[in-house]
Amino acid sequence: MKFLTLKAKPLDMETGRHIVVLHEEDAEELGHFPGDRVKLTTQNGTVVAIANTTRRMVRRGEIGTFVEITGNLAIKPGDSVKVRLAPRPQSVTAIRRKMEGHRLSPEDIGAIVKDIADENLTATEMTAFVVAEYIRGMSIDEIVALTRHMVDTGDRLELDAKPVLDVHSIGGVPGNKYALVTVPIVAAAGLTVPKTSSRAITSGAGTADVMEVLANVTFDLDEIGRIVRKVGAILAWGGAVRLAPADDIIIQVERMLGVDPPCQLLASVMSKKLAVGADRVLIDIPAGPGAKVERIEEARSLAHDFIELGHKLNVQIEAAVTYGGQPVGYAVGPALEAREALEALLGRGPGSLVEKATSLAGIMLELGGAVSYGLGRQTAAELLRSGKAYQKMREMIEAQGGDPEVRPEEIEIGEKKEVIPSPSSGYVTQIYNQRVNDIARAAGAPWDKGAGLRILLKEGRKVEKGEPLLEIYAEHETKLDEAINLAKQNPPVKIEGMLLEKFTGSPRVNYL
Amino acid sequence: MKFLTLKAKPLDMETGRHIVVLHEEDAEELGHFPGDRVKLTTQNGTVVAIANTTRRMVRRGEIGTFVEITGNLAIKPGDSVKVRLAPRPQSVTAIRRKMEGHRLSPEDIGAIVKDIADENLTATEMTAFVVAEYIRGMSIDEIVALTRHMVDTGDRLELDAKPVLDVHSIGGVPGNKYALVTVPIVAAAGLTVPKTSSRAITSGAGTADVMEVLANVTFDLDEIGRIVRKVGAILAWGGAVRLAPADDIIIQVERMLGVDPPCQLLASVMSKKLAVGADRVLIDIPAGPGAKVERIEEARSLAHDFIELGHKLNVQIEAAVTYGGQPVGYAVGPALEAREALEALLGRGPGSLVEKATSLAGIMLELGGAVSYGLGRQTAAELLRSGKAYQKMREMIEAQGGDPEVRPEEIEIGEKKEVIPSPSSGYVTQIYNQRVNDIARAAGAPWDKGAGLRILLKEGRKVEKGEPLLEIYAEHETKLDEAINLAKQNPPVKIEGMLLEKFTGSPRVNYL
Repeated sequence: MKFLTLKAKPLDMETGRHIVVLHEEDAEELGHFPGDRVKLTTQNGTVVAIANTTRRMVRRGEIGTFVEITGNLAIKPGDSVKVRLAPRPQSVTAIRRKMEGHRLSPEDIGAIVKDIADENLTATEMTAFVVAEYIRGMSIDEIVALTRHMVDTGDRLELDAKPVLDVHSIGGVPGNKYALVTVPIVAAAGLTVPKTSSRAITSGAGTADVMEVLANVTFDLDEIGRIVRKVGAILAWGGAVRLAPADDIIIQVERMLGVDPPCQLLASVMSKKLAVGADRVLIDIPAGPGAKVERIEEARSLAHDFIELGHKLNVQIEAAVTYGGQPVGYAVGPALEAREALEALLGRGPGSLVEKATSLAGIMLELGGAVSYGLGRQTAAELLRSGKAYQKMREMIEAQGGDPEVRPEEIEIGEKKEVIPSPSSGYVTQIYNQRVNDIARAAGAPWDKGAGLRILLKEGRKVEKGEPLLEIYAEHETKLDEAINLAKQNPPVKIEGMLLEKFTGSPRVNYL
Repeated sequence: MKFLTLKAKPLDMETGRHIVVLHEEDAEELGHFPGDRVKLTTQNGTVVAIANTTRRMVRRGEIGTFVEITGNLAIKPGDSVKVRLAPRPQSVTAIRRKMEGHRLSPEDIGAIVKDIADENLTATEMTAFVVAEYIRGMSIDEIVALTRHMVDTGDRLELDAKPVLDVHSIGGVPGNKYALVTVPIVAAAGLTVPKTSSRAITSGAGTADVMEVLANVTFDLDEIGRIVRKVGAILAWGGAVRLAPADDIIIQVERMLGVDPPCQLLASVMSKKLAVGADRVLIDIPAGPGAKVERIEEARSLAHDFIELGHKLNVQIEAAVTYGGQPVGYAVGPALEAREALEALLGRGPGSLVEKATSLAGIMLELGGAVSYGLGRQTAAELLRSGKAYQKMREMIEAQGGDPEVRPEEIEIGEKKEVIPSPSSGYVTQIYNQRVNDIARAAGAPWDKGAGLRILLKEGRKVEKGEPLLEIYAEHETKLDEAINLAKQNPPVKIEGMLLEKFTGSPRVNYL
C-alpha cells in the first residue's frame, strides 16, 4: 500500500470532525481524491481522517491538521506523519446502495447512523444519504433499524415508572400550545409524561419557547429524571440533551435542502420518544390547508405508518388527526400563548384549545390505562374543570424553577400593540397559517418572548368592516411596524361574502 | 426584513467561495439555518454569501469573514457589517424540484450550472443535484441544456477550420493508447483534431500521461489554438484549460460518491468537445467484462443517446463499440505505452492496437469527409503504412515541445523489472482489467512514468507452466515488490484447461 511521510502543519481551526488537508500533488501521488479517507500514523498512534486537498493552505510535503486531529495525535509543527489511503467505510458503501435503490440491512443502517453521530461523514456523504432517503424512501424494517440505532448512539432517560406516556404533534399549526394543557391533565391522573419539545423552527413559538415563559426548560438528563420522578411530568427543551444526536444532524441537512423525508420524520419522532423511555405514545397529526400535512388521506397514511412502526418497536401508538387548517386558540407567540394556556388550565377557554387539549389528554389517559376506553375525554375534562390539572401545572412550574403563583395577566407581553381592523364586511373563510407565523416572527417571536399576535375572529365568524380582526404585539417599535406592514401586504385572514356553506367552521378532532 | 449589524472578524483562510461565519445565537435571531445565504452590506458594497454557524470561531455580535469576502468588501477588523437573510437562489429551488422528480427548464439548469461554475453552491446543494441526477435521470432536452450551459460558463477554443474532428473513449480499459495512433492518422489526411484528454483516474495511464512522455501536454487555450493551426492536431491535457469548469466540479462530487450518472457522462463528454469547437465526433465505447460498460446492449443504448444528443447540439456523432474485455495492446503505464504507440506508428504493431486505432481513424476520416464512406479503414491503414501518420506525429511532438527524433527504444522505462511466469499450463481465458490497472499503479504508474507492466500473452493464447506471462517495470524497488505481491495475490491473467471453444479470442471492433 502506497504511503507518504509528510510534515505536520497544525491549522488553528476547529471543524468538529477529523479532517486534514493535503497538497493536491501529494494527494495525486497517493491516488487520493477529495473527501477520501486517509490513515494517519505518528509516534502517538493511528487515526482515520477525511482529507481535503489544496494548493494554497499547505505546501507539498506538508499535511494540515485541524484542531481535533492535532489534539488527538498530540501533533507538534514539523512532526512526521505517515499517510496512506484508508478504505471507503461501510457506511459510505451502504449510502451508495441506498442511492441505487436497494434496501439496507440493519447492520448497514447501524454503520451509517454511527458514522453520522461520530461526525465521520463528509457533507457530501450525509447529503447523499438524506437525498437517497427522500427519493427512494425506506421500508418499515429500515425505519425500525434507523430508529433503534439513532437511540443507541445517544443518551437515554431511565425511569422506573411504567407505563411512560408521551405525546408528539407533527406541527405546522400556529398557536399549538396544547401540550401545556394536555400534559398536566395526564400527569394529574398519576401518569408519567417526560415530554421534551423543540423550539420554533418556522413558527412563532415552539412548545419549549412557550413553557420557557413560565419556567426553565434547559435541563440535563439527570435533572429531567429528577423532576419527572418528583412531579410525574416535565416540559423540557429537547435541544439541551443528547437524545438521538444523529437525528439532529440529519435534520440540519434536511433543513438546508428544504425537504422532510417521511421515513426520517417517523424515525426522528420515535427515536426521541424511545430515548426518554416512552412506551405509550400519542401522535397528533394536524391536517388542513397550510398545515404540514394538508390532506386527510395523507394524515391517515402517516398515522398508520406510526402505528406499524410503534408495533415493531414495542411502543403502543395511537394517532389523532386534528384540524390544522387554522391556529389553535387565538394567541401566537411565547408569552401570549403561555397566557392562553394558563387561562385554559384555569377553566377559561378558549374552546378550540380546550377541545384539542382534552381530546388528546383523553386518548392518553386511556392509552396509559388510567381510565377505561371511552371514558378518557370526560375524565380529562373533569381533571381540567376540577383544577387538578392546574394544580399539576403549578407543581411542574415549581419543579422547573418557575413561579407557580403566576397569574395569566401577570405574564409580560409586548408593550407595543396595534389593532388591525377588517378591511371589509363578510365572513372569515380562511386563516393562512404561514402568514400568521410570518407576522408573529416579524414582530419578534420567538426571540422576543412578548411578541406575537392574537387573532380575534376565526373561521366561520361574521365580521363588519372596521371591526378589530387582529392584535399585533411587539417589544420594539421597528418590529411592530414590520409586522404591521407584513399583515397589510399579506392579510392573514380571508374575508368573503356569502360563502358560509362552503366550509366547516369549527375546529374538530377526528379519532382514527 | 430583519437584520443585524455585526463587527467583522476577518479569518485567515481561503475557502474558494463566498462564506461567512455567524455565532449560533445571532443566526437564530436572524432566523438563519446553517447553509442559508445572507446579504452583507458594508460602506463598500453588498454581496451575498453562504453563512455557516459556530459557537467557537466568533463571538456574539461578530461575523467571521473568510479571505474571499474580506477582499471583496475590503473589510477591516471591527468594521460594521449589516447582515440580513438572502432568499434561496433559483438554482437551489430547481435542485429540489429535480429531487422531487420534475423535469427542469433550460433556465433552471442554466441557474444551477452558473452557480456551480461560480462556486455559489454549498457541498450539500451540489451533492443533492448529483444524487438527484443519478436517481431521477434527465431527459435528452435537460441534458442538452446542461451541456450548453456547461460550455457557456467556460472558455472556448476558436478555430477557423471546418470541420473540426474529435474522438473520445469512454474508458475503463487498460493500455488504451489508441489516440496516439488515431489522431496522427486523421490529421495526416488534413483534418483538424484538437484533442484534449484527461490523466489517469483509476488506470495506469491516461492519454495525457502517455503523451507527456513524448512532449508537453500542459498548454493554455491560446497555445492549443496556435499548435492546432500549425500542425492540424494536438494531444493536450484538458485539466490545464477551463473548458466546462462546472463539469469538473460535478465530477469531483461524483468521485466522492463513487457514482457516474449517465446523463452527466453524456453532458460531460459533449461539453468538452463543444468547447474545443468540434462538430464531428467519434465516441468509442469499449464494452466487455471489467470495462466501464460491461454489456453490449448497454453500450448500444449509450451510443444511441450520444447520437441523439449530438443531433440536438448540431454535432455529428458516430459511435463505435469496441472490445474492452482486455487491455489494448500489451503495455500499460505511461512510458511503456508511449513506446508501444510509437512502434505502431512505425508499422510494427501490435495487432490489437493497430486494429483499434485504424478502425477508429477510418470512421473519423469518413466522418470528416476526407474519404467516401466505406473507404475509411483502408485509407487509415494506408496512412499508417506509408509513414504519413508517423510523420504527422513527429510534427505534433515537435509543436508540443518534444523531441521528434525519439525512437521507441530510447524512451526510458523503469530499470527495476520482474518477469512473472505462468503458474500452470493451459489457455489464457481472461485478463482482469481492474487487476492490471491495480498492478500498474502499485508499480508507480502513472506518477512514475517508467512504471507499468507488459502482458505477454493475451486471451486465447496457449501457455506452458513456467512460461513468462507478465513483465512488471518500476522505478523503485519497494514499488516493484508491492506490484509483484499484488500480481501474486490477485493474478491478472486467468489460465484454464480445455476451454478454448468457450470464448472469442481476438479483439474486435463492432460498428453500429
